[in-house]
Amino acid sequence: MRRLRLLASSRSAGSKVRYGDEEITVELLEPSAFKGVDLVIASTPDEVSAEFAPWAVEAGAIVVDESGYWRMDPKVPLIIPEVNPQAVENHQGIIASPNCSTTQMVVALAPIHAAVGVRRVVVSTYQATSGAGLAGNVELESSVRASLDGQTHTPETFQHPIGFNLIPQIGSDKHCGYTSEEMKMVYETRKILGDESIAVCPTAVRVPVAIGHSESILVETREPITAEKARELWQAAEGVTVVDDLDNHSYPMPRDCDGKDDVFVGRIRQDISSDSGIAFWCVSDNLRKGAATNAVQIAELLARRAVTSS
Amino acid sequence: MRRLRLLASSRSAGSKVRYGDEEITVELLEPSAFKGVDLVIASTPDEVSAEFAPWAVEAGAIVVDESGYWRMDPKVPLIIPEVNPQAVENHQGIIASPNCSTTQMVVALAPIHAAVGVRRVVVSTYQATSGAGLAGNVELESSVRASLDGQTHTPETFQHPIGFNLIPQIGSDKHCGYTSEEMKMVYETRKILGDESIAVCPTAVRVPVAIGHSESILVETREPITAEKARELWQAAEGVTVVDDLDNHSYPMPRDCDGKDDVFVGRIRQDISSDSGIAFWCVSDNLRKGAATNAVQIAELLARRAVTSS
Repeated sequence: MRRLRLLASSRSAGSKVRYGDEEITVELLEPSAFKGVDLVIASTPDEVSAEFAPWAVEAGAIVVDESGYWRMDPKVPLIIPEVNPQAVENHQGIIASPNCSTTQMVVALAPIHAAVGVRRVVVSTYQATSGAGLAGNVELESSVRASLDGQTHTPETFQHPIGFNLIPQIGSDKHCGYTSEEMKMVYETRKILGDESIAVCPTAVRVPVAIGHSESILVETREPITAEKARELWQAAEGVTVVDDLDNHSYPMPRDCDGKDDVFVGRIRQDISSDSGIAFWCVSDNLRKGAATNAVQIAELLARRAVTSS
Repeated sequence: MRRLRLLASSRSAGSKVRYGDEEITVELLEPSAFKGVDLVIASTPDEVSAEFAPWAVEAGAIVVDESGYWRMDPKVPLIIPEVNPQAVENHQGIIASPNCSTTQMVVALAPIHAAVGVRRVVVSTYQATSGAGLAGNVELESSVRASLDGQTHTPETFQHPIGFNLIPQIGSDKHCGYTSEEMKMVYETRKILGDESIAVCPTAVRVPVAIGHSESILVETREPITAEKARELWQAAEGVTVVDDLDNHSYPMPRDCDGKDDVFVGRIRQDISSDSGIAFWCVSDNLRKGAATNAVQIAELLARRAVTSS
């Protein structure tokens, strides 16, 4: 029997959510809730995932987890289905979906890595407020409205006012002045691409945009590659859409990528500061490919595998 | 006799501008307007500067020009007073002030270059709408208001809607997929630092911020340098303020730099992707140090020079 169940904390348990023609009552997230469940798609804080995921695995379910808690666990595959679907074979009940900023970057890097090898990545992010959840977008709007009205506004979700401002901090200090968000882009990229030698220098910045993370990326490759060849690789890559015509003002922008599942790549050009680099601009809907879409794609991958092996 | 005169096109000539207790009538910008003028500070489109600057020089004035037209002319010094004041000696009547994005970056790079040599710069900008003039800020506000009200808004100043969006294009295609704004950061940096071997890979992006350009910069140096040493150099540098305490959420942000003359540097850390690099975040008021302040500082430099040599 195929049935969707919704689990949450006691704050939300008992409330009703519409799903198609159905109305589903949210149940309490507790050990007994996973009885008879085959597949769990979870988006919770790290500490909640640490506690519930073992309950689900114990009950026989497979967990596709969007939190950061399990991603770097050697027993847990970290999967982007277009990039490393084979890694799912070794799961032991928990499969992790990467950080939003990492996912779109690695989708873009993967065809380059396969062709000429990625040696080094320098990335600066322009991250949407929805990366901090619904509260982030509520705060963006209230902060912008306060600015327009000449009012002060006290931030609660972000460290500082985000309206008409930039905050060069996402997460907390993790390693030698790099934030936790930045170090996720280092560690997760290496794990997904299966190459611990890849060097990454990330700078993560919150911008007053509601939906759609953008990234300015410089990739240095082991073998030289032309911008034309990189463009061809991206045009042929699954999950990537090339939007790249500067003369006609055509390039990826958050407004155009909102609500879409692909990773959008543009401003593709030779690095004029090294012998073997490509500079490009990458945008993706952080709520879709950066979160829900990737988790659903992992679930689909598991479903196809179940059909094949049965 | 010290007297301030204001010159503009026929569209503005005849209007009155308040300056202190005075009201000054704007005069027409024409060849005869420069008679008896010692010093011109000019902020005009490139094509206007191309025409009027020779009139002013012919009349015996020195022109401090903020347009892009003269910057790369070998006969024209391109000056940031904290960085290369000595270059003013060779002027032939016209002195150029750099592009706003270049100015703040080079103020930050200069002490590093003097100490250990700058080999390469990878920079991604987050540029305010006021870089496109008053019209840019009017459009930011109307675009944001339209979004909040669920209305469509047709951009006039920018290529696309800027409210809650990012536009990865400033200027037009200039060189191999790099924009004119980006190539200014390459050419002007080399000229000001007097080193044609410096490699720069820039990405220039317009963000929905009114005032204050921000830059995520990775600088690779000829000799290794620690983040601590870089911080010390910046703390001692003229025109630079270090704001760098991640644990206390302290770093430069556009909101805090609005209306200030300095270049603000923070998020100072070792590049974890190379043996000799420093990553940092740099913010400055693009209307001040990026434009008016630097031009006035050049004028002050000329004035001190006149006093010294008389």
